[in-house]
Amino acid sequence: MPETKVKKDDDFNEWYNEIVELADLCDKRYPIKGMNVWRPYGWKLMSHVDNLIREEMNRSDHQEVCFPLCIPETLFQKEADHIEGFGSEVYWITHAGHSKLEERWLLRPTSETAMYPIFSLWIRSHADLPLKTYQIVNTFRYETKQTRAFIRVREIHFFEAHTCHVDFEDAERQVKEDKDIATTLLKRLCLPFIFNKRPEWDKFAGAHYTISIDVLMPSNRTLQLGSIHQYKDNFSKPYDITYEAEDGSHKHCHQTTYGMSERLLGAIVGIHGDNKGLVLPPAVAPQQVVIIPIIFKGKEEMVLQTCETVAMILKSHHLRVFVDKRDITPGNKYYEWELKGVPLRIEIGPRDVQNDQLVVVPRDTSEKFVVSLSDIEVQLPKALDDLNERLYEKAQNIITGNMHYVTSIEEAKELKGIVVLPWCGTDACALDVENILEGNTLGEPLEIDETVKQHRCPVCGSSAIKWMRFARSY
Amino acid sequence: MPETKVKKDDDFNEWYNEIVELADLCDKRYPIKGMNVWRPYGWKLMSHVDNLIREEMNRSDHQEVCFPLCIPETLFQKEADHIEGFGSEVYWITHAGHSKLEERWLLRPTSETAMYPIFSLWIRSHADLPLKTYQIVNTFRYETKQTRAFIRVREIHFFEAHTCHVDFEDAERQVKEDKDIATTLLKRLCLPFIFNKRPEWDKFAGAHYTISIDVLMPSNRTLQLGSIHQYKDNFSKPYDITYEAEDGSHKHCHQTTYGMSERLLGAIVGIHGDNKGLVLPPAVAPQQVVIIPIIFKGKEEMVLQTCETVAMILKSHHLRVFVDKRDITPGNKYYEWELKGVPLRIEIGPRDVQNDQLVVVPRDTSEKFVVSLSDIEVQLPKALDDLNERLYEKAQNIITGNMHYVTSIEEAKELKGIVVLPWCGTDACALDVENILEGNTLGEPLEIDETVKQHRCPVCGSSAIKWMRFARSY
Repeated sequence: MPETKVKKDDDFNEWYNEIVELADLCDKRYPIKGMNVWRPYGWKLMSHVDNLIREEMNRSDHQEVCFPLCIPETLFQKEADHIEGFGSEVYWITHAGHSKLEERWLLRPTSETAMYPIFSLWIRSHADLPLKTYQIVNTFRYETKQTRAFIRVREIHFFEAHTCHVDFEDAERQVKEDKDIATTLLKRLCLPFIFNKRPEWDKFAGAHYTISIDVLMPSNRTLQLGSIHQYKDNFSKPYDITYEAEDGSHKHCHQTTYGMSERLLGAIVGIHGDNKGLVLPPAVAPQQVVIIPIIFKGKEEMVLQTCETVAMILKSHHLRVFVDKRDITPGNKYYEWELKGVPLRIEIGPRDVQNDQLVVVPRDTSEKFVVSLSDIEVQLPKALDDLNERLYEKAQNIITGNMHYVTSIEEAKELKGIVVLPWCGTDACALDVENILEGNTLGEPLEIDETVKQHRCPVCGSSAIKWMRFARSY
Repeated sequence: MPETKVKKDDDFNEWYNEIVELADLCDKRYPIKGMNVWRPYGWKLMSHVDNLIREEMNRSDHQEVCFPLCIPETLFQKEADHIEGFGSEVYWITHAGHSKLEERWLLRPTSETAMYPIFSLWIRSHADLPLKTYQIVNTFRYETKQTRAFIRVREIHFFEAHTCHVDFEDAERQVKEDKDIATTLLKRLCLPFIFNKRPEWDKFAGAHYTISIDVLMPSNRTLQLGSIHQYKDNFSKPYDITYEAEDGSHKHCHQTTYGMSERLLGAIVGIHGDNKGLVLPPAVAPQQVVIIPIIFKGKEEMVLQTCETVAMILKSHHLRVFVDKRDITPGNKYYEWELKGVPLRIEIGPRDVQNDQLVVVPRDTSEKFVVSLSDIEVQLPKALDDLNERLYEKAQNIITGNMHYVTSIEEAKELKGIVVLPWCGTDACALDVENILEGNTLGEPLEIDETVKQHRCPVCGSSAIKWMRFARSY
């Protein structure tokens, strides 16, 4: 079987760069660096991810909206931390046709400053709350670091939920709901992850606190897939989002946001793929099953008819199935669908038809097995579930096998992946660790673990108050 | 029943401006004129329209892609007519963060110049053809005319199909397929329309010819919903899109595009709506049926249970159904769902439950009728079909009743809507008619009608060679 030129275990980053183009996900030759073309297969895959997000959002009573892309400079500047955080990475529109604009506009890097002036018009009374909205749009950030398809780009396919609440407690409930949604969604993508409460110096510009959703890539670098922010009333004050409470008083809303990006796709590619190509979780695979007729002269009709019957039965069970009848060799078809990551391949030849059976080959193991035609309605969905579980477990092993609780810098220096150290709570000590390990502070675990108090901060020697996670990140 | 402040027959444009906000389609208070906020209901409705388009595109083997929004100036300038046509109406990005860009970028007004350099990389041989792609994205045009929601905006929700072919004939076949797609799609939206071959001076910048898709709004002004362009090799030459033919020679592709915009929604609102609000074609109504329980004390459970049963049955027939159990009066619910244009309202009270029946009220006629519970699986889909047909016929009457074949300017001056005049084929004569009628040249009918040769051009008196349509347009 043909394989990628670069092997995943030899050079993960190069393998990744090769696979995203080989598998027809994107084209990086567009003449603006970091603004890539979504090819049909990549866009279809991303659309399936988007639809899973929509499902979760609709189920939790969020409403989909779509706000303008351009934001006038004065709107943007209302929240001071926000402009400071984003000012150096936005694109500016200065002219329309041959005229100079009276005021510059920027392309949204995220939509707080476009939405909140309008929210302040939509929200009048406590009866309008909670307001739960989301949109799936393109956002823009002027990245100066090296770009990488889906992982670090300048035009970003982005999901952002924005909510408004009567008080801090209700916003906290929203943060909890968002965490549940992330857990459900990433389970379906077979992506085990960790939540990290970001340190003060690395929270979102304007947030009260930020929880990041991080996965560990096979290169042992973490990738942040999304984040959940508690804003408190940090934005509602400058943007004047108030409501009339039941007692007639006027109060500022408390707000949250929850964002994820096309990095979800980057994680699917990077974590599940192998040297033959993508390996797609069934929930988002554009085709979950491909059926390859193995044709010998004179037996074509019999074989093709069985293929179509099998496809029809599986489709009636809501599986996404494709019968590949193209006039190329089965070997070429295997190669192509392996590259595209289709979870299950079915092979049907004349002998299979005679024996009322078919051959199933799961993408991840390539271990063939025979299924009786009368059993396919049970066995094929089960084979997809089994593959799903294997993908999740394999990914889980990467993260659990590379998360190390240690108590000294010396031990930490020897380790790859995520190291968790006792921490005294002082910014300077964490920043010291970052420097020594040449990594980033991921943040603290959300679960409180009192046992850390038995340990001392490895930098200053004071009593530790919490665990802090460090890693090299994308 | 509450109605709009402005009546549709009194002042269509004002009625339209009122209804788009009253029905929660959009919010026009965003601080950039012509860049509106899609509210949840409007966005849902537009998404249903998009999905109908996707259905048609997928059925005809087009592949969905997504190209970058920003286009470097040099790419844009390769096709001379194109830059001349769009140069004065594009937005320019000049800065990223605090730095000036080496080259200006523009926001796509349409995507030819972003796509075609990449098409030239994708297409190698005749085996790669036809290439049939489409995308649904936001585009940007600096409109200096008065803006109007969905009809004339500066950020446009846009559908664009781009195809490449071996020769002119194959591109012509694509134009025919596009016309069929437009016909199917607009039928489902209950929007009768006419194709017009645009005059030379008003074709798309760079096109060989342009066919517009026009509807007549109740204000007797036409609205162009979309267009189909035959490009010939006008773009493939400057963008170097060539293929190796079977005989080994290298040839330029012939290309077509097919575009439509959120104006589809503007037409649905304007043509079908009335003084009570929207009237939505079933194919795109976010809710096709709303069920209102008429509750009397002590009978709640019985009524609600029947409502849920009816909803379940209709949903199993793939209808979009909503049971409105909110604690407000039925009258308020009627008002709200009429405003939102839900095609069918079902009322169920205790007496209906006893009689195994329900009451159906179609949105367009408001004529109640009773359906037996045992008949709903047949009668409700039929009621939707009937409404669909009535919407189409009513709209058809607007256009047929206001399309006038006349042979003199004097007659034309007395008429509203679309006037069709014999024409000698000279630009100057058509432009004269435009001036006199204070309207636009819509274009010529696609069907050749030899009878026109019996007539003379009403401006210069020469023999007429074709009919030409004129109208006031949005």
